[in-house]
Amino acid sequence: MGRHVVIVGGGFGGLAAARALADQPVTVTVVDRQNHHLFQPLLYQVATAGLSPGDIASPIRGLLADAPNVEVRLGEVRGVDLAAKTLALGDGSLGYDTLILASGVGHSYFGHPEWAPHAPGLKSIDDALEIRRRVLLAFERAENTQDAEERKALLTFVVVGAGPTGVELSGAIAELARFTVARDFRAIDPTTAKVVLVEAGPRVLPAFLPHLSQSAQHELTRLGVDVRLDTKVEHVGPEGVRLSTGELRSRTVLWAAGVASEPLSKSLGVELDRMGRVKVGPDLSVPGHPEVMVIGDLACFTTPEGLALPGLAPVALQQGQHAARNVLADVDGRPRARFDYEDKGIMATIGRAAGIAQSGAFTLTGLLGWLAWLFIHLLYLVGFRNRAVVLLQWTWAWFTYQRGARLITGGRGQPPG
Amino acid sequence: MGRHVVIVGGGFGGLAAARALADQPVTVTVVDRQNHHLFQPLLYQVATAGLSPGDIASPIRGLLADAPNVEVRLGEVRGVDLAAKTLALGDGSLGYDTLILASGVGHSYFGHPEWAPHAPGLKSIDDALEIRRRVLLAFERAENTQDAEERKALLTFVVVGAGPTGVELSGAIAELARFTVARDFRAIDPTTAKVVLVEAGPRVLPAFLPHLSQSAQHELTRLGVDVRLDTKVEHVGPEGVRLSTGELRSRTVLWAAGVASEPLSKSLGVELDRMGRVKVGPDLSVPGHPEVMVIGDLACFTTPEGLALPGLAPVALQQGQHAARNVLADVDGRPRARFDYEDKGIMATIGRAAGIAQSGAFTLTGLLGWLAWLFIHLLYLVGFRNRAVVLLQWTWAWFTYQRGARLITGGRGQPPG
Repeated sequence: MGRHVVIVGGGFGGLAAARALADQPVTVTVVDRQNHHLFQPLLYQVATAGLSPGDIASPIRGLLADAPNVEVRLGEVRGVDLAAKTLALGDGSLGYDTLILASGVGHSYFGHPEWAPHAPGLKSIDDALEIRRRVLLAFERAENTQDAEERKALLTFVVVGAGPTGVELSGAIAELARFTVARDFRAIDPTTAKVVLVEAGPRVLPAFLPHLSQSAQHELTRLGVDVRLDTKVEHVGPEGVRLSTGELRSRTVLWAAGVASEPLSKSLGVELDRMGRVKVGPDLSVPGHPEVMVIGDLACFTTPEGLALPGLAPVALQQGQHAARNVLADVDGRPRARFDYEDKGIMATIGRAAGIAQSGAFTLTGLLGWLAWLFIHLLYLVGFRNRAVVLLQWTWAWFTYQRGARLITGGRGQPPG
Repeated sequence: MGRHVVIVGGGFGGLAAARALADQPVTVTVVDRQNHHLFQPLLYQVATAGLSPGDIASPIRGLLADAPNVEVRLGEVRGVDLAAKTLALGDGSLGYDTLILASGVGHSYFGHPEWAPHAPGLKSIDDALEIRRRVLLAFERAENTQDAEERKALLTFVVVGAGPTGVELSGAIAELARFTVARDFRAIDPTTAKVVLVEAGPRVLPAFLPHLSQSAQHELTRLGVDVRLDTKVEHVGPEGVRLSTGELRSRTVLWAAGVASEPLSKSLGVELDRMGRVKVGPDLSVPGHPEVMVIGDLACFTTPEGLALPGLAPVALQQGQHAARNVLADVDGRPRARFDYEDKGIMATIGRAAGIAQSGAFTLTGLLGWLAWLFIHLLYLVGFRNRAVVLLQWTWAWFTYQRGARLITGGRGQPPG
């Protein structure tokens, strides 16, 4: 059945590549350490109890079940041997003719991995459930404690980094406190909870046009989020954070600041950018290794204008489709095409009725921005069922301010009271 | 605000009692180690990936937010001091004037607690997610292994105990294998998976009328479940089970056989039945302690006819309401009433289109039994949102044979491949 294409990662990039190679004259293996494809732009909703994990995740197998030439393998890729064209997996090895690396990136704590246990990031379903657990437990503990200082620390939530994830997380936590759980407690008043969004740069959402950043900041402030710009994080510990402007006691610090590549990209032994992403050529391949393409967040692709593309779902999606086209060009003996990113715009949401969107010179703010966000996200959610369920949950949540998935489950470490 | 009523447990019994005491001249504290009320009859659907945890669980706080005289406290009750009228909690103590114990029961491994890690039971959301994880991972591992014997053990699922939970679990796993994931794998054929239901007694669902047991067994067999009656489990280990009829290699053994009270009931120092349940008087109180009532699965209530009531949701619900009525009788100086169980019937479901139900002499089987089950369970699901979402998920699942919540998350112990 022709050459063997191995795709590492079943996110936006990997899934798009696999789908584009379905029913083509190649054999495809998709390897992921998770069994599900995740609609990452909505992950913050799981972390803040608005949606259930099942609403934004679908089993990769199910999504590719109709393609007999595609197999899915659950496993962790430990390393790549470029010379032998082999991947090392936890339970064996896997050879490839063509490799598409789409395994994404992890969190970067700016050289302070010891901060990680005190400030979880948001990349996987398990991350989101851990954040949900911490946020909901903080209110529970605040209700139980008699110590006023401790109560204040429990009702202070710090989000580090004002990119889309940080903005959406802090807005959603502020809403959770001010509306959703407002009437649930007796000893504490959840509406007095403090949500602090810390950003080292001069504005929120730096990837957007300045007037959109301003609109987003205005909406955040209206929701009660304390936005602190030009502020650096110097230390994170169990008691809270030390900022460049002073100490801040908090029991719940969330990390949305930096990304860094996983050890996998280092194992390649090729050139990386300063964030550890793999520098790829115009056809998305690793220089000197046309049989290895890197796509999505893990790739550093520079446009002819000299701009490095950001780690966004649409970039990963288009690169996945393009990598697949290149594979088929190889099969047919045609030359590969250069990747060209079609920028359809970017968007972010702040709370239940405000958003910002920009597409070229066209921009939207406020309710219109939010409706655009809602529409696009529902449109791209994989699978009919999820879409219908999510729409129903949102409608319900919108009219009632309730969040249905307010469950404290699992627990890595901290037992309740 | 009058006497302090402490309710331990926010299940069917505890929640019913708390709701009946809302806006009454008493102060109520509900203590639970979980923050959510769980619709336990549908828990097997979470364990078999049909529903998400958020669909069948609601935060206890949210359910009681409208009652200003009711507070909810997240915490684990470690013991009861009947003389001092005090509960020992993980983070302090709590006094009561009246205590309603509704904390339910755990699993009993017939004196073999060492079997627990190899055969998880189904009581909490975390239990359900662990079972889901094990079942889905077994298919993944079977796909990856080259060892035919190991593959067979991975594709053999053993459910111990043929009460409602065991019957529903085994039916749902058989359906999962034969329909839902049937086309998802390449190296294995999931429809060859073996589901074995082991029961020590002479028939499945012994609480039902014999002809209904027979109907249920017929439906199970039709789904491909291998029902083994009059068969005892002699040993459970990582390799599988030893039955009174021989060895059975299996990597996934699930426990639905016995229940036993938690250490809490022993701490009371009062008379227990052989399952460790607290024997209560006609008014649901502990003999010699009218201020302590025990309800639901933890209570052993004997009817005037000499029958001990089973651990069922309707029993707990009616007892919760009755305990609240007794509290209010105390407040008014009226005598307490005797608890009288109104038996509306019992039901169970087998797969996607068969069920059995009996109410007095009236019985239903097959599709009618299943529709009755569906209707009653939707009716009793707490909260509109859950009900609408669950109906939508079920409709979708019914027509497509798909299960939306097929996620492998978390993990107590076993990492993938």
